[in-house]
Amino acid sequence: MTQFSSTEKSKVKRLAKRGCYDRETIYKILDEGIICHVSFVLNGQPFIIPTAYVRAGDDLYIHGSKANRMMNLLNEGADACISVTLMDGYVLARSAFHHSMNYRSAVLFGKAKIVEDRNEKIMALKEFSEHFIPGRWDDVRTPNDKELDATIVLKFSIDEASAKIRTGPPADDKEDYALDIWAGVIPFKITAGEPVPDSVLKESIPIPGYLSKFISGRK
Amino acid sequence: MTQFSSTEKSKVKRLAKRGCYDRETIYKILDEGIICHVSFVLNGQPFIIPTAYVRAGDDLYIHGSKANRMMNLLNEGADACISVTLMDGYVLARSAFHHSMNYRSAVLFGKAKIVEDRNEKIMALKEFSEHFIPGRWDDVRTPNDKELDATIVLKFSIDEASAKIRTGPPADDKEDYALDIWAGVIPFKITAGEPVPDSVLKESIPIPGYLSKFISGRK
Repeated sequence: MTQFSSTEKSKVKRLAKRGCYDRETIYKILDEGIICHVSFVLNGQPFIIPTAYVRAGDDLYIHGSKANRMMNLLNEGADACISVTLMDGYVLARSAFHHSMNYRSAVLFGKAKIVEDRNEKIMALKEFSEHFIPGRWDDVRTPNDKELDATIVLKFSIDEASAKIRTGPPADDKEDYALDIWAGVIPFKITAGEPVPDSVLKESIPIPGYLSKFISGRK
Repeated sequence: MTQFSSTEKSKVKRLAKRGCYDRETIYKILDEGIICHVSFVLNGQPFIIPTAYVRAGDDLYIHGSKANRMMNLLNEGADACISVTLMDGYVLARSAFHHSMNYRSAVLFGKAKIVEDRNEKIMALKEFSEHFIPGRWDDVRTPNDKELDATIVLKFSIDEASAKIRTGPPADDKEDYALDIWAGVIPFKITAGEPVPDSVLKESIPIPGYLSKFISGRK
């Protein structure tokens, strides 16, 4: 299935031409993002928590501590809405009204289940690590039993999702194109700065190759 | 009042030492952010929408179209939770378990009201513009009556809020410091790339000074 089905819940209503239900497009947004915002309802009140995530196949994983209120609530079957937003730039029009942003935004709806299987849990933690910095997992001290036990991994099956995307130049009113006002796009990017070694890092340890590669890719 | 009161709703529970209720700290996060995520409940289901915002005094404004479902729902008194997250860097520990992120995150709870007063509405739209690119408002064609009428501005009084902040190096288990694994922080920043002029922009219009200044500040 390459298209998500869209119900009233996930249908993009405002500026529907920017809406999209294509699995490949949505997964590309998820794979490029670093954090998501998870919302849930507790006693009728909406809550949001920003957290790291990773997509693997048709599932989205988040993780947290055993003591985390949200993790437990979601495991009990609470509905969740998850949003990943990539901000690509400011769109500067000639009129204040037509100023906008270029963005790619994915919104998912679903329920979560705790990953009980030990191998799937380790696999998910490795996917997290590889999503953030490819190559890091093989370099670090991997989780021991105590750490695995203290960590909850939640899996959302991505059943319903939509994306909303804006790209390209500003769209001004016809008569405003005659105005002497600069218009165009200021692109944005999340870039990595110079790594800051831990102050107690042994001096003999250089920056590993996979990390230099990651940082170059984020310049 | 320089501290927000904190109830069960806004109290930071996980890693409480990272929690903070100081108005100045929270406002600084809001003033640095570009987009927020707004969550609300409709028929028991949580929804999230990413959107632009601006803080002015003790209020937070968002805006949208008259036809926007969320804008109308919030104006009818629905509870909202608003999150602004600044991602400052990856924290690379020697163990997979102690990997983390440096971040500054603010979460607000409140209800919204439509701004009916014409002058306050124009003031809020100007604040938006100045929040994004200082100096832009005085350069552009400001909203006419038709545009003002098509725009809803919602005002949230910031009554209850909290921040959660992580800074600094990784915190590894004592015995892991002996391992030959690179550890430290990779800082992140949202940077602006080269501006892309609208393809139909008159050639005689150079990049204005305030915009060059903005872009330099985001290098």
